[in-house]
Amino acid sequence: MTINQNIPVLEIIEWNRAAGKQIVVIQGLGYVGSSVAAVVANAIDANDQPRYLVIGIDLPNEDGLSKIEAINRGEAPIQSPDPEFTRLVQTAVLERNSLVATSDEAVYSLADVIVITIPLGVKEYEIEGADQIELDAADYIEAIHKLGRMIQPGTLIIVESTVPVGTCRQMILPIIQDEFANRQISGPFYLAHAYERVMPGPNYINSIRRFWRTYSGIDKPSAEKARAFLSSFIDTENFPLCELENTESSEMAKLMENSYRALNIAFMEEWTKFAEQIGIDLYQVVNSIRVRKGTHDNMRYPGFGVGGYCLPKDGMLAQWSIGNFYQSDLVLDMTLSALRTNHYMPLHTLDLINELADGSIDGKSILICGISYLPEMADTRNSPTSLLVDALCRGGAQVAVHDPFVASWGERPDVQVIRDLNAWRQPVDGVVLAVAHKVYLKTIPQWLSAWTNPLPFIVDANNVLPDDIAEQLHSYGARLLGVGKGHWRRRGYSCN
Amino acid sequence: MTINQNIPVLEIIEWNRAAGKQIVVIQGLGYVGSSVAAVVANAIDANDQPRYLVIGIDLPNEDGLSKIEAINRGEAPIQSPDPEFTRLVQTAVLERNSLVATSDEAVYSLADVIVITIPLGVKEYEIEGADQIELDAADYIEAIHKLGRMIQPGTLIIVESTVPVGTCRQMILPIIQDEFANRQISGPFYLAHAYERVMPGPNYINSIRRFWRTYSGIDKPSAEKARAFLSSFIDTENFPLCELENTESSEMAKLMENSYRALNIAFMEEWTKFAEQIGIDLYQVVNSIRVRKGTHDNMRYPGFGVGGYCLPKDGMLAQWSIGNFYQSDLVLDMTLSALRTNHYMPLHTLDLINELADGSIDGKSILICGISYLPEMADTRNSPTSLLVDALCRGGAQVAVHDPFVASWGERPDVQVIRDLNAWRQPVDGVVLAVAHKVYLKTIPQWLSAWTNPLPFIVDANNVLPDDIAEQLHSYGARLLGVGKGHWRRRGYSCN
Repeated sequence: MTINQNIPVLEIIEWNRAAGKQIVVIQGLGYVGSSVAAVVANAIDANDQPRYLVIGIDLPNEDGLSKIEAINRGEAPIQSPDPEFTRLVQTAVLERNSLVATSDEAVYSLADVIVITIPLGVKEYEIEGADQIELDAADYIEAIHKLGRMIQPGTLIIVESTVPVGTCRQMILPIIQDEFANRQISGPFYLAHAYERVMPGPNYINSIRRFWRTYSGIDKPSAEKARAFLSSFIDTENFPLCELENTESSEMAKLMENSYRALNIAFMEEWTKFAEQIGIDLYQVVNSIRVRKGTHDNMRYPGFGVGGYCLPKDGMLAQWSIGNFYQSDLVLDMTLSALRTNHYMPLHTLDLINELADGSIDGKSILICGISYLPEMADTRNSPTSLLVDALCRGGAQVAVHDPFVASWGERPDVQVIRDLNAWRQPVDGVVLAVAHKVYLKTIPQWLSAWTNPLPFIVDANNVLPDDIAEQLHSYGARLLGVGKGHWRRRGYSCN
Repeated sequence: MTINQNIPVLEIIEWNRAAGKQIVVIQGLGYVGSSVAAVVANAIDANDQPRYLVIGIDLPNEDGLSKIEAINRGEAPIQSPDPEFTRLVQTAVLERNSLVATSDEAVYSLADVIVITIPLGVKEYEIEGADQIELDAADYIEAIHKLGRMIQPGTLIIVESTVPVGTCRQMILPIIQDEFANRQISGPFYLAHAYERVMPGPNYINSIRRFWRTYSGIDKPSAEKARAFLSSFIDTENFPLCELENTESSEMAKLMENSYRALNIAFMEEWTKFAEQIGIDLYQVVNSIRVRKGTHDNMRYPGFGVGGYCLPKDGMLAQWSIGNFYQSDLVLDMTLSALRTNHYMPLHTLDLINELADGSIDGKSILICGISYLPEMADTRNSPTSLLVDALCRGGAQVAVHDPFVASWGERPDVQVIRDLNAWRQPVDGVVLAVAHKVYLKTIPQWLSAWTNPLPFIVDANNVLPDDIAEQLHSYGARLLGVGKGHWRRRGYSCN
């Protein structure tokens, strides 16, 4: 039997239930949901048979439907550098018949386990004070109501979303209880929080299957059910599960670990400026410190900015819960200040552009290389490039943008994205290397070597060019500055 | 031949020089100098003979002379939990005849290598703004002048002190050049910066011998000589030396690595308050995060405060150099804010004391257990206990202090230090466990069990008591709160 797109999903569920399979519904098919679906659908029992029928569900809009159709064809719904992702989807759909995707919400009522991976975000990333944080929770709350209206008693709900501390107990639990009351159902349900640590990138699948996982239950039975479920697809022999005392603890753990990371990135900003002012190569300095394993090896490097879905907002979720779930006036000053520093980090690159543009970018044309927030990825969520584009435009500059992994920039349809850099011959005054995509190391010097003089100035905001290439480009007449590369200024690369 | 205290040190040097040994003078016999002296004096050549005669020099005051005399008897000049330290001093002095200590400054003129380990500090640890940082450099500058007036051409000066960025080039170099000019000496000297990462504690000696070392020279010959010297006593096979481009880079590296550590400690403060307010065990949360090796395993724990010589001031040295050596108005906001947070951290413990003292400490008697800034150590430099003592006294409390490793508190002769806790029977209203000396886990519950009711309240500021002991003490009638231990409040331990 091969799952056929023409067979209604409810019929498929019926067959599987009859065959003794548990039905797992993954709510949301983004970076998290897609990979969780692929992994859970490949969980096998002692007889090498799939343990679950996994149903991935997403909204019936263009993006959702394209993912649903991709999965049902046995194809990866999201571009990923991890070949294991494609393989798992293919195996589950075409060989094991253990994965199917749909937009039909009727599946909720047939689930044994529901995994919530849909996001709970903030409305505005740029805030002045703690009281300005606004949750973007309407869709999330509606989705929970929907579950409450549809699930059967006995269902296990696993919240993998990153949420404000207290969300499971103060928001999700009462919503479902209310909906159960409306339905005059008294039967139990189980609620657990088991936040994901999915890393889109080459270890995409192993960031679920072979990585540490923390979880907690709203009560003891919920925690036990969550443990059993997580154990069925995580390599718990090498990565033992960690149970925390209550859902608040694991909600806090996730927000705290991302806030810590954000802080350690933000720390670099002021030292970057210091190093540049006095002619020091901060990359060299950081490398000399990072040898101290266990205490200093996670020191970050200077850089262009911080993007992605989690790091820019998780501290805000924590702050929001303090004021709203706990009515406290405590302010996570350091945490919020780190988010602000990271948010405005691209403005330091703007300073370097201004310096090389001799104080005015008005009328200058600038090419920014790199949109995604990590190298070798197509992920443009909260791209720091966006802030720089705006600042350059406000200053009167003409801006074009390129990224080898990004054909069109969903969040910024207003910005011109160049497809083929080598074919693009429009003269520019300056080039900003914003993301360290490997290919840039080769293509940028190549592209510049074909240039008719004078060469544009270059701001290397993310350690794309090694010193010898920078020196070479300078000898060809280019003026260069680099974030954290004080030694370039000391060596005169910024002058003719 | 055994070095005899009656033989003048200059004579000993003469013999050794005649025997082809290099003369190494270690300036300062504190935590750094003493251990460096012990290690360098045990460096051997291919024939298992000592490579150097090491002269440790300190001031002829009470403290200095006691260290000098200890070394010359072959005894450790500083109390250390590392037995290797004692062994190395003993071997060098009594067997190898390769170590001698003195206060006779004439030795400078006979040195091949001078290692500067004396401290360069700040006048005030409590500052409001960046412009209030004052260097406490008079003694340091005088010591450099002394070297300039005495050393011979060709001497290698290794600065192991933590100094503001730019100190070697802008302060030490010109002082010695000036003194050489005064002496009408044109010959070269060599100047290198090779900051230490000495950790007083059980790995005291290996923190020099088997640990990463970064260095730099004021010029290439200086760097080469420094490398040769460092290689002679550091296990460079397992811990390759790291040369940085200039002295500014290595000066910055040291300040930056300690600022990073201080920041990561400070980060805990606001999350500690958050966790306590909402009843979460932050230790459990942190442990669940620290499994993420390489990115989160250096997350700190909640705690009482930060002491010691380095962490509370190194960020200030960086800020000082920005304003004074480089005339820049850049402010290391995050770095300085972390220092402030750490400095005032004990005031959070004060809040917990106030809570258990029902709002007023006036007239209450409080016993603080722990002075040293690290467990199992006698080091009282910048003890955070000092701030708490002051705050308690200002509030009208009677304060007594105990530390199993500290017989008398040099920095605070005004504070009563109890020698034998078990013999001490003065009734107290509250006990603060400030330092997690292992012995407290046993002695404190024991001592309290002999108490006549009512038991004093207990504030565990440094995770001294595990939950079961806390629960037991609570069942005996004690009221407890703990830093980062929100679950104690949730479980009602703070109430009767």
